[in-house]
Amino acid sequence: MDKSTQYKIFTDPVHGFVSVPKGLVLKLLDHPYVQRLRRIRQLGLANTVFPGAEHSRFSHALGALGLMQRVLNHLRERDTTITYNEFESTLAAILLHDIGHGPFSHTLEKSIIGNAHHEKLTLLLMEELNRQFEGQLDTAIRIFTNRYPKVFLHQLISSQLDIDRLDYLRRDSMFTGVLEGSIGIDRIIRTMRVHQGNIVIDKKGIYAIENYIVARRLMYMQVYLHKTVLGGDKLLIAILNHARRLLQRNEPLPFYSPALEFFISQRRNNTEMVSRKMLDMFTRLDDNDIILTLKYWQHHDDPVLSDLCRRFLDRDFFRTTFLDKKPTDKQLKKWKQDTSGVLEKMGMPSDSDTVSSYFFYDFSQSEAYKYKNDGIWILNDDVAVEFSRASDNQHILALTKPVIKHYVVHLKNVPLN
Amino acid sequence: MDKSTQYKIFTDPVHGFVSVPKGLVLKLLDHPYVQRLRRIRQLGLANTVFPGAEHSRFSHALGALGLMQRVLNHLRERDTTITYNEFESTLAAILLHDIGHGPFSHTLEKSIIGNAHHEKLTLLLMEELNRQFEGQLDTAIRIFTNRYPKVFLHQLISSQLDIDRLDYLRRDSMFTGVLEGSIGIDRIIRTMRVHQGNIVIDKKGIYAIENYIVARRLMYMQVYLHKTVLGGDKLLIAILNHARRLLQRNEPLPFYSPALEFFISQRRNNTEMVSRKMLDMFTRLDDNDIILTLKYWQHHDDPVLSDLCRRFLDRDFFRTTFLDKKPTDKQLKKWKQDTSGVLEKMGMPSDSDTVSSYFFYDFSQSEAYKYKNDGIWILNDDVAVEFSRASDNQHILALTKPVIKHYVVHLKNVPLN
Amino acid sequence: MDKSTQYKIFTDPVHGFVSVPKGLVLKLLDHPYVQRLRRIRQLGLANTVFPGAEHSRFSHALGALGLMQRVLNHLRERDTTITYNEFESTLAAILLHDIGHGPFSHTLEKSIIGNAHHEKLTLLLMEELNRQFEGQLDTAIRIFTNRYPKVFLHQLISSQLDIDRLDYLRRDSMFTGVLEGSIGIDRIIRTMRVHQGNIVIDKKGIYAIENYIVARRLMYMQVYLHKTVLGGDKLLIAILNHARRLLQRNEPLPFYSPALEFFISQRRNNTEMVSRKMLDMFTRLDDNDIILTLKYWQHHDDPVLSDLCRRFLDRDFFRTTFLDKKPTDKQLKKWKQDTSGVLEKMGMPSDSDTVSSYFFYDFSQSEAYKYKNDGIWILNDDVAVEFSRASDNQHILALTKPVIKHYVVHLKNVPLN
Amino acid sequence: MDKSTQYKIFTDPVHGFVSVPKGLVLKLLDHPYVQRLRRIRQLGLANTVFPGAEHSRFSHALGALGLMQRVLNHLRERDTTITYNEFESTLAAILLHDIGHGPFSHTLEKSIIGNAHHEKLTLLLMEELNRQFEGQLDTAIRIFTNRYPKVFLHQLISSQLDIDRLDYLRRDSMFTGVLEGSIGIDRIIRTMRVHQGNIVIDKKGIYAIENYIVARRLMYMQVYLHKTVLGGDKLLIAILNHARRLLQRNEPLPFYSPALEFFISQRRNNTEMVSRKMLDMFTRLDDNDIILTLKYWQHHDDPVLSDLCRRFLDRDFFRTTFLDKKPTDKQLKKWKQDTSGVLEKMGMPSDSDTVSSYFFYDFSQSEAYKYKNDGIWILNDDVAVEFSRASDNQHILALTKPVIKHYVVHLKNVPLN
Repeated sequence: MDKSTQYKIFTDPVHGFVSVPKGLVLKLLDHPYVQRLRRIRQLGLANTVFPGAEHSRFSHALGALGLMQRVLNHLRERDTTITYNEFESTLAAILLHDIGHGPFSHTLEKSIIGNAHHEKLTLLLMEELNRQFEGQLDTAIRIFTNRYPKVFLHQLISSQLDIDRLDYLRRDSMFTGVLEGSIGIDRIIRTMRVHQGNIVIDKKGIYAIENYIVARRLMYMQVYLHKTVLGGDKLLIAILNHARRLLQRNEPLPFYSPALEFFISQRRNNTEMVSRKMLDMFTRLDDNDIILTLKYWQHHDDPVLSDLCRRFLDRDFFRTTFLDKKPTDKQLKKWKQDTSGVLEKMGMPSDSDTVSSYFFYDFSQSEAYKYKNDGIWILNDDVAVEFSRASDNQHILALTKPVIKHYVVHLKNVPLN
Repeated sequence: MDKSTQYKIFTDPVHGFVSVPKGLVLKLLDHPYVQRLRRIRQLGLANTVFPGAEHSRFSHALGALGLMQRVLNHLRERDTTITYNEFESTLAAILLHDIGHGPFSHTLEKSIIGNAHHEKLTLLLMEELNRQFEGQLDTAIRIFTNRYPKVFLHQLISSQLDIDRLDYLRRDSMFTGVLEGSIGIDRIIRTMRVHQGNIVIDKKGIYAIENYIVARRLMYMQVYLHKTVLGGDKLLIAILNHARRLLQRNEPLPFYSPALEFFISQRRNNTEMVSRKMLDMFTRLDDNDIILTLKYWQHHDDPVLSDLCRRFLDRDFFRTTFLDKKPTDKQLKKWKQDTSGVLEKMGMPSDSDTVSSYFFYDFSQSEAYKYKNDGIWILNDDVAVEFSRASDNQHILALTKPVIKHYVVHLKNVPLN
Repeated sequence: MDKSTQYKIFTDPVHGFVSVPKGLVLKLLDHPYVQRLRRIRQLGLANTVFPGAEHSRFSHALGALGLMQRVLNHLRERDTTITYNEFESTLAAILLHDIGHGPFSHTLEKSIIGNAHHEKLTLLLMEELNRQFEGQLDTAIRIFTNRYPKVFLHQLISSQLDIDRLDYLRRDSMFTGVLEGSIGIDRIIRTMRVHQGNIVIDKKGIYAIENYIVARRLMYMQVYLHKTVLGGDKLLIAILNHARRLLQRNEPLPFYSPALEFFISQRRNNTEMVSRKMLDMFTRLDDNDIILTLKYWQHHDDPVLSDLCRRFLDRDFFRTTFLDKKPTDKQLKKWKQDTSGVLEKMGMPSDSDTVSSYFFYDFSQSEAYKYKNDGIWILNDDVAVEFSRASDNQHILALTKPVIKHYVVHLKNVPLN
Repeated sequence: MDKSTQYKIFTDPVHGFVSVPKGLVLKLLDHPYVQRLRRIRQLGLANTVFPGAEHSRFSHALGALGLMQRVLNHLRERDTTITYNEFESTLAAILLHDIGHGPFSHTLEKSIIGNAHHEKLTLLLMEELNRQFEGQLDTAIRIFTNRYPKVFLHQLISSQLDIDRLDYLRRDSMFTGVLEGSIGIDRIIRTMRVHQGNIVIDKKGIYAIENYIVARRLMYMQVYLHKTVLGGDKLLIAILNHARRLLQRNEPLPFYSPALEFFISQRRNNTEMVSRKMLDMFTRLDDNDIILTLKYWQHHDDPVLSDLCRRFLDRDFFRTTFLDKKPTDKQLKKWKQDTSGVLEKMGMPSDSDTVSSYFFYDFSQSEAYKYKNDGIWILNDDVAVEFSRASDNQHILALTKPVIKHYVVHLKNVPLN
């Protein structure tokens, strides 16, 4: 057989070309669950700040698939045995690792399906796919859930140095234009080894790892936790919360999206199981459901709903202010009162529910590198040493401390004093 | 005043940074008409073939705005007088040059508003904006419509070598990953001059122009007229046509999008004027209206509608076949009969209306460079010479001949014999 | 054995990383004949115009070696059998394909060793290496000289679409900063096939080939035949010719370089064989011998020699003027007379020998693509079609016509009228 | 006057295009002192490890000149007054900032002219140029030596965040292919301000600065202090020291380079003044003098000299081994004895002088960022804060601690035990 028919080739602006093996992997790629990721932006609202960041979760999944093939082929060249089934299953697992993401990726994670984390949904959808594909995903699921003996395969999917991160850092850096997030993927892949069953990095790659960790920190600070993005997130969550309140008051609320209506209209508690019906509706939901609904809600009679939606669509967000430390209850109370006063002057409702749609306090937390449970290991003369101890500079240790930033999101004319 | 407050800076993956002058231009950028372009993909369906090509018309408009500033500043340095009003108005005109685009850019141009070309709609929307901004767009509109004395300003917006093309070629090349479309924008801008009132290129830039023309041809052949994209276009048009037929038969058809319903449900003829109501509805319409509606129509009872929508969403397009020459009527009749037969075997309706949703003939036409009316001029020792005559190679002349490609879009199991 | 010890990895700014297999290929790379290429600039004098173009023939040889590995591995994946010996020999042949280049690459090709073309010297040096390596280069030499049955291996080394060109176009484009020369190497390699024993390109790559041909033309016009570079070439040749004349007049001339003295001082005729001594001296010669000698000759008593050398080192070249057509004998005579007059005014000798160091006529000839003997073949449904006939545009045919440019190199104050 | 004649444009692979203002700056660029930098590699021996790193000090000087123009124009746009004389003088100062570098840049700094640091020589050559240009460099010299009132101009030439570093980090990163050294120059320049007379960075640029500091560290660790480069440096220094010894023993030693002979043959002590003769000879010296001399010395009768030169030219360097801590005298004595033994077995001289050409101990010291005297300042709400205190992470503080690495350079078969 001509091998030309064994791959489907995709062009990718980040990695050049991605070959997708025909058979199971291509069938999964063509499945509606994966195609749906074309309609979910990888970075949620970041495109409101970085206009180029309009890339989808689908392009990330495809890019990670391409990188995973390169890594697995590289490890085979370095004498690590990887069977055909393991190869295909690891590709399947990385391709599917994000299918549980809902609209706007992380932003609405809690707003749409109570406490169902996207990784839990991913697993449920992988199990559903496994039924449809009659067990062909057994190994992929074991790898994904770290129940497969060769743990390095799981580490490539989820760890402090996994293929997911390598692709998204490079991709997000390129599409946002934030060069400070660029990493040397080629060098990292070329120095990967399997040592005593675990992924390690040859000491020649130690500076590429340092660059990777600092780049990740810089992407968090400049992009993922950008204050305008944080402000947009709060606005979007506030809209859905306010819609729920209107429904509870039995006010008429056209949804334009059956799936969104399903999730917003029913009251759910945190211990509730995810039902099959819910899973089915979930797979019908993507960014379009949210955007389209908001687009028409901006003409709704409710002044709060229409104002919030208009702000969202026209990118007229609230202001986000970082604080030096956690605000006191007294401060928060004062600021909420000020918000209420401003709303009143604007001719808007000024009750506490409405205030909660116009004033928010939260904090972000991030660390560039964690080494407690699953650090990165450097191979030095056949001995693996945890990265922060292998480095010639103590600054890596400082990078393991979480950076916590307290912030409030508020109307521009509410002074924070 | 600190000049730092005179610009808003955007990060752009193509050009690095784009400075938007505060005042009129930034206000226009923030206007809902321009923000709406965030929700329209620049390349319609090309992202189904090139997964990275998810960039919006908004990012193109912003990039073109950035390039235009560089060009105008460069021309000023070369002793061309450009007043403040001309500067600002040209920026406004390039920023707004695409606001008349509807969902999926060119694909649905004729399907949604009869014969109203996007440039006509752009002008109507610019005039509406001019009302809202109390005449501040007077000069911009005159430049856009080529009624302003300094014609070189119009040439920068629309000609064989305009800023629109410079931005979209580079942007589309980068986001698709099709390197053959890359052009040397810096060299082109640096060799631009105004000579006797027209834009010309200093002879030092002649090879950069040759590269630009060939790159444009290669983007047409590899991206804009890619056969899968052509096939997807036909499918999307067929869906809207079929929906119109269902409405004419008075079958129930929920739309999920009031604006789309408005345009599909009313019968319009080609001579009809664009009404204010229509314009208002148009500005509410974007890619989301189409995608969301199709997403729910795939569960509709009508077997043709649901099949077409499912094919579209899951990227299960028809096959596109290029033909050596225009097919004969006899051939087309035969292929339609075959299509009917295949539909029947699939248990689908097989009437001629349905066949028209599953079989299409069309042709594409493109030329890399036209010189009849508004060619590119090369400045050689103070004399401007039309580019194809200034070149040292005859191949430019061949590039002015249109390439015509006949093609049919058909079910995979309809043999074309 | 750990495979990590089977390759030596080099970092390359063009291709990322290049793996050199240990064994024969690495030994050849470390051989003085190849290491000597570190001291010869790839583009001769082009760095006087493009300051970044300081890359060596060594980096080109290494880059071509890396690309060749990718191509051979790709062809193996496409079911073309390539034995271990063929693989290693083809790598050896591409690594060595330029070892016969002398100082300043093409510029001095005829000035240093009469009519011994660099390809002839390459072959002589490969045969010498074969002696040193006891026959291990037998196959490499047969491939290089096209006496090996699998002709596609030779085509990869020397043809209208060989690895040599792929590397040098990309490398020269990057280091000069002339973006118009950029080509899509990945796409070309991925569409290469062996068909009936010859290298062909799958039709999916046809536009990448078109881009490659136009890019090659643009590099010739913008870089390789840049008028300042042509002028520098004439100056350098004039210096060596003048030195020969001084020696013939028995004037004292310190050389600072034994090898350069060897080649300049002896009179050789065109039919002379290349002796072993000559070959040995040749391998001692590189750019440094020329530059260092010129540096000290600029302080020599002979006014012509010192003037020419100073001009060369300080980049104070003559002017190059392209002519519309071949100049008449009358014109040339007039211009030489004018040169003589100008020299006289400058207080310089103005005899005909000196004039021949200050005035030059020549022409350049280049074609973007030749298809007479060894064109590029496109594979379309299992039939190979020559590229210019496979294209959908006639402009390729025009690109096969040679572009001839007549030019004179002259003192700035010699008017060409 | 047409402004087109006011600049000469150079193409640069790093920054695209560089415009050099005609007049003083272009005249300086064309001066032999600056043209000489074309013949000195920016990174000394790094090209033996990174084959692409063949770029010259000239291309760095030109690139820095281009960046400086952008910075000065940017500061003017931000309302900082910079007169025409200051503008031109700052360009002159950055163009000339490296003209005191000798062959192989830093490697031979002490070997050729005793203790004359390259910055001292730069100043002497600038003063000589000032004489030739009749005082036009007065301001440039005051800026260079920090005796000009507007200290921010000096800071742009020499400080913890100067244009020199911005250019060389980006350039060296690109030409070596070490991506970990890439920095966001555009963002840094756009956030530069003059605050109370000093260069500061707006807080929006704080992460670009963090990236710059880490990138600088990574370039030191991966490139500038690469162990093969350190080993090559020792070898080159040993060759010149050995040549001095041969001269002291009155052994015949042809030099092939008058300038090199001048510097090696005379005995100089550290307090000696740099004479005019010495300065003149210095400007005749470049990489070619060293390489050519070594090339012929490898055929010299002295076995040590020929062996060292052959090793250098064929890249057959000694091995470099990093040590955990400073070696004891006892260790060093033992290793020298071992070296002597190995030399003896090789049939080489084994006296202590020879051992000093085959065994070396040294240490490297580098810190990513110093803040004691001239740190980087971040502007936060009109207050300038030193960068390590302005950062949200303590790891910057760790980066101010010097990293010291002890190493020995030794024959491969000398075991370090």
